[in-house]
Amino acid sequence: MSRRAFLSQTGKVAAAYPAMLALGMLQPAPAHAFDLPGNGNGKRIVILGAGLAGLTAAYELTKLGYQCTLLEARNRAGGRCWSIRRGAVHHETDIAPQTASFDDGMYFNAGPSRIPHHHELTMHYCRELQVPIQVYNNVNEATYFFSEGKNGPLSNRKIRSREIRNDLRGYTMELLAKAIDQHQIDTGLSKEDSQKILEYLRAEGGLDLDKLYKASDRRGFIEQPGAGNKAGKIGDPHKLADIISSGLADPDFYNVAEYTYELQMTMFQAIGGMDTIAKAFEQRVGKMVRYNCEVTDILNLPEGVKILYKDKKGPGELQADLCICTLPLPVLSNIRHNFSSDVSRAIDYVPYMVTGKIGMQFKRRFWEEDEQIFGGITHTNNELTQIFYPSYDYLSKKGILLGYYNFHDKAKRVGNLSHAEREKLALEKGSLIHPQYPKEFETSFSVSWHKTPYSMGGWAIYTGINRQTLYKSLLQPDKQVYFAGEHTTYLNAWMAGAFESARRTVADVHARMTNQRVSYPTANGS
Amino acid sequence: MSRRAFLSQTGKVAAAYPAMLALGMLQPAPAHAFDLPGNGNGKRIVILGAGLAGLTAAYELTKLGYQCTLLEARNRAGGRCWSIRRGAVHHETDIAPQTASFDDGMYFNAGPSRIPHHHELTMHYCRELQVPIQVYNNVNEATYFFSEGKNGPLSNRKIRSREIRNDLRGYTMELLAKAIDQHQIDTGLSKEDSQKILEYLRAEGGLDLDKLYKASDRRGFIEQPGAGNKAGKIGDPHKLADIISSGLADPDFYNVAEYTYELQMTMFQAIGGMDTIAKAFEQRVGKMVRYNCEVTDILNLPEGVKILYKDKKGPGELQADLCICTLPLPVLSNIRHNFSSDVSRAIDYVPYMVTGKIGMQFKRRFWEEDEQIFGGITHTNNELTQIFYPSYDYLSKKGILLGYYNFHDKAKRVGNLSHAEREKLALEKGSLIHPQYPKEFETSFSVSWHKTPYSMGGWAIYTGINRQTLYKSLLQPDKQVYFAGEHTTYLNAWMAGAFESARRTVADVHARMTNQRVSYPTANGS
Repeated sequence: MSRRAFLSQTGKVAAAYPAMLALGMLQPAPAHAFDLPGNGNGKRIVILGAGLAGLTAAYELTKLGYQCTLLEARNRAGGRCWSIRRGAVHHETDIAPQTASFDDGMYFNAGPSRIPHHHELTMHYCRELQVPIQVYNNVNEATYFFSEGKNGPLSNRKIRSREIRNDLRGYTMELLAKAIDQHQIDTGLSKEDSQKILEYLRAEGGLDLDKLYKASDRRGFIEQPGAGNKAGKIGDPHKLADIISSGLADPDFYNVAEYTYELQMTMFQAIGGMDTIAKAFEQRVGKMVRYNCEVTDILNLPEGVKILYKDKKGPGELQADLCICTLPLPVLSNIRHNFSSDVSRAIDYVPYMVTGKIGMQFKRRFWEEDEQIFGGITHTNNELTQIFYPSYDYLSKKGILLGYYNFHDKAKRVGNLSHAEREKLALEKGSLIHPQYPKEFETSFSVSWHKTPYSMGGWAIYTGINRQTLYKSLLQPDKQVYFAGEHTTYLNAWMAGAFESARRTVADVHARMTNQRVSYPTANGS
Repeated sequence: MSRRAFLSQTGKVAAAYPAMLALGMLQPAPAHAFDLPGNGNGKRIVILGAGLAGLTAAYELTKLGYQCTLLEARNRAGGRCWSIRRGAVHHETDIAPQTASFDDGMYFNAGPSRIPHHHELTMHYCRELQVPIQVYNNVNEATYFFSEGKNGPLSNRKIRSREIRNDLRGYTMELLAKAIDQHQIDTGLSKEDSQKILEYLRAEGGLDLDKLYKASDRRGFIEQPGAGNKAGKIGDPHKLADIISSGLADPDFYNVAEYTYELQMTMFQAIGGMDTIAKAFEQRVGKMVRYNCEVTDILNLPEGVKILYKDKKGPGELQADLCICTLPLPVLSNIRHNFSSDVSRAIDYVPYMVTGKIGMQFKRRFWEEDEQIFGGITHTNNELTQIFYPSYDYLSKKGILLGYYNFHDKAKRVGNLSHAEREKLALEKGSLIHPQYPKEFETSFSVSWHKTPYSMGGWAIYTGINRQTLYKSLLQPDKQVYFAGEHTTYLNAWMAGAFESARRTVADVHARMTNQRVSYPTANGS
C-alpha cells in the first residue's frame, strides 16, 4: 500500500476527530464557567509575565471589561509551558545557546508534560479553548528499573518493572498471609473477616492456594503463550534478598510509583505539544502582550503602579491601576521593587526546584519495536533518574524520548554541563539500558530550568513552616501589586496552579475594582 | 470561537497525524515478517469463516501464492471483531432483531476492545496494515466500586476505586510493618534488609513515620487543593471492617484488578473502532470472500475436501485441496462433517464463555464533566459487573459507554432478556451509580454472544484436563481440514489468538503443500 493511499484512507478518521471534538467543546461544563458580576470599565491592569497564569488572568479580565497589558521578557508566551520543536532556541546562564534540529512534526515538552484528570480547571480550559487532548500513558508495566552500581545480582541490568513490583507484592503478601494464618499477629478482625482478608492477600500478591508466592504471569513470560503447543513459560521470581541487595527496593524505585494522587491514571497531554494550551490563550490575548520586554522595576505609587522595563528600543515605563505579577520568585528577586519586607523575604527565600530534561530524537522507535514499551517511564538510580517514552504517534518511525528528567543534586550536576556534555552523559547512561542508543540516535535538546533566564527554577518548593510564613505573604496584594502563579498555590509544579491562581487573583482584583466582597470561585474544592 | 474556526485550527494537528504514522508504518519491524520459503503455485485453499483468523490466513496464504476462497455466513467480515455503528443490525437466536440508532461517528466495540502491548502479532498487523491505534485507558483510579446489597455502611454507594485500593493497601502494609517491627514474624532477612523492607512497606502502604495508616492523598481529597489558602482536605480512611462487611474486599472487586498480565498497561485500541483491523484485512482479501454463505457440510475426500453451503441462491458446493476451518466450535458443532471421533468430541464439548455487552449512548459525557472519569472501568457485584467508559473523543459532547460487560450466570440471566429489557436493567442498575442516566440516556444496543448465530459464545474456555484432551485434538489437521481461531491457542478471547493460530496453520499448510518440515515462526515466544 502506498503512503498516498494510506493517507487517503486514514484521513477519514483523522478528519472526523476534530469535528467530533468541536461539537462537544462548544459546551464547556457550566460548573467551571467564571461569571463574575460587575464590569471593569476599562481599568488598566498590567500583567507581568505571559506564562499560563498571566495569559489566563488577561483572558478572564478582558472578559470582565478590563484593559490589560502583558509584559513578557521572552519572544514567546507560555513561560515554562514550552514544547521544543525544530528551530527552538534556548539560552542558559553560562553556556552557549542551542537550537533544536528535530525533524519537522516532532516535539517534546520541556516543561509540564502531564495533566491529572482531577485538575478540573486545566481540563476546563482545554474544553473552553478547544484544545484536543490524548492520554498521557503514565503507567506502563513494561518499562524498566535500572539500579546502577550495587552489589546484588540484579544491579547493572535492566529489569522489567512488572517483575520487581509483582515479586515485592508477592513476597510481602505471603509474609502477611502466613502470619495471619498462623495467628502470629492480631488483625483485630473477626475470624470470618480475617479469612476474607486472607483471600484478598492471596489475590493481591498472586499467591498460590497454599498462600505461597511462586511467581505468576503478572511478572511476564520468558516464553510468551501462543498457538498450538505454546503454553507459555513463566520465569522464577527474583529472590527477595537479591532485590534488596541490588537496590531495587530502594526509594529510587518506590518513590516514583503512580500511587501518588497527581500521577494516578487517567493522565492527559495536549495533542501536538503541551504549549498548544498556551498558544490557545495567546490566540485570544496575544495582542495585549509586549514581547522581548524585560521588567526592571516594579513600583507601587500612592495610587496605581509604575513598571520600568527594557525592550529592543531601550528603557520604557508603563503605569496602570493595578499590577498582577506572575514572575517566578527567583526572577522577581533580581528586579527592583518597593514591596514590604515580608513580601521581599518571600521573594528571596522560597526555594525552587533544580531540574532538567533532555529530549533525544532517534531514527527508530526501538523501544516500541524491539522492547514493546509504549509510553511510560523507566526509573534509574543514576543521573538519568527517569527515561520517558513518548505517549504519541505510537507505531510511527521516529520518536523523541526524554533521556533524563532529574531533580535536586543530580539535576544540578547535569545542569553544570554543556549541552554536548549532557547529550554524551544521556547517551552513555542510556546505552546501559538501551544498547540501540548509539546506532539510532540523531539529535538532542536539553533544558536546565534552574539555569534558564526568566524561569530560574522548575517550581516553588514549600516545606514545613514556609507555608505559614513566606507563602502567606504572597497571598495578599502588596498595595497595588498582586501575585499569581503556581508559587501562590498548593498545586506547585502543575499547570493547574497557574490557572487556579489566575482565577483567584482575578476575583480579588475584580472585587477591589468594583467594591465587592471577594468570593473566589474555583473548579476544585467545591 | 466558531465551530468552523476551530475545525480549521485543529485540522492542522489532525491532518499531520496520519502523515506521521504513515512514514513509520511503511517499515514494520522485520522481526515479525512472515517470509516462508517456497510457493503455493495456485493450490486451492477454502477457508471457513472470515473472522480475524480466516482473514489473516487468506492474507498470508495469498502472499505465498495460494488461491483462497473464504466462506462467510454473515454479510460482513470480522466475526466477533465487530464495532457497532449507526445502522448495524443484530440477530439473536430467540428475540426480535435490533438496529443501531447511534449518532453518526459514534461506536462501541461489541467484541474485542483492548490490545495488550505485548501481543506482538496484533501490534505487527496494525503496523503492516497501517491501522492507527490509541491508548485504551484500562487503569483509572477515579472509577467506582459499587457493592450492592451488603450490610456494611459502604454498600449501595459508589466509592472511588482509589479509596478502597489505597485503604486496603494501607491497612495490610501497616499490619505487616508492625509485625516485622515487633519481631512477631521472621522475614528470613538480615536486620539491615528487614529495615529496608520496612521502609518499602511504609512507602507501599502510604504509612506515616510511625508505620500507621492514617489515610493519604492517594485516596483523593474531600476538598481539592488550590490557590491561596486552599490546602486541600483529605478524608478519613474507611474502616477495614466496613470495607469487608460492605463486600468491597470480595473477589468481585479484586479479581478485576489490572495486575493481570493481559490487562496491564499499556493497552491500545484501533482508532475509530476495533473492526478497523478487520476492515484493513478485508480491503486486501475481501474479493476472496463469499458473504451470506452458510456452511452446512465439511467433508474430507480421499484427496481434497468438499464443502456444502447455502447462500442466497440456494445450496452449493466447493472443492479444494485443503480447508482451514476457523468456525467457533459451538457453530461447527451444528455442521455435518466426517471428522474423527476425537475431533468431533472436542467440537462438541469445549465450553464457550457466556458473555454480553450493552452500548449506551448519552447526550452528555456526564462521567467526564460531573465526575472526572476519563476511560477505565467501574466494577460492581450486580448484573452489570462492569461499566466501561469510552477511551476516545475525550471532552466531546456525547459518548457511548458500556453499560454492562458481564460473564457466566449474570450474562446468562441478562442474555435471556429482550433488548428492551436489557436496556431497562442497565438503566436501573446504572442509575444507582450514575443518577444522570435517566436524563441523559438516548439509545442502546446489546449483544449476547452466546445467543448470536455464527458465534454462539464469547471465546473457548479450557480448564484443567481439557488442554490435554479436547484441545490437543484440534491442533493436528483432520485429513485435509485444519483448525484455526483463538480456540486453538493459549490466547483465548484475544485477537492475538486469531493471528497466532492463523500463522501457525498457514505454516503447517504450506509445509505440507511444499513438502517441507514445519517450522512455525511466531512473533511471540522467541
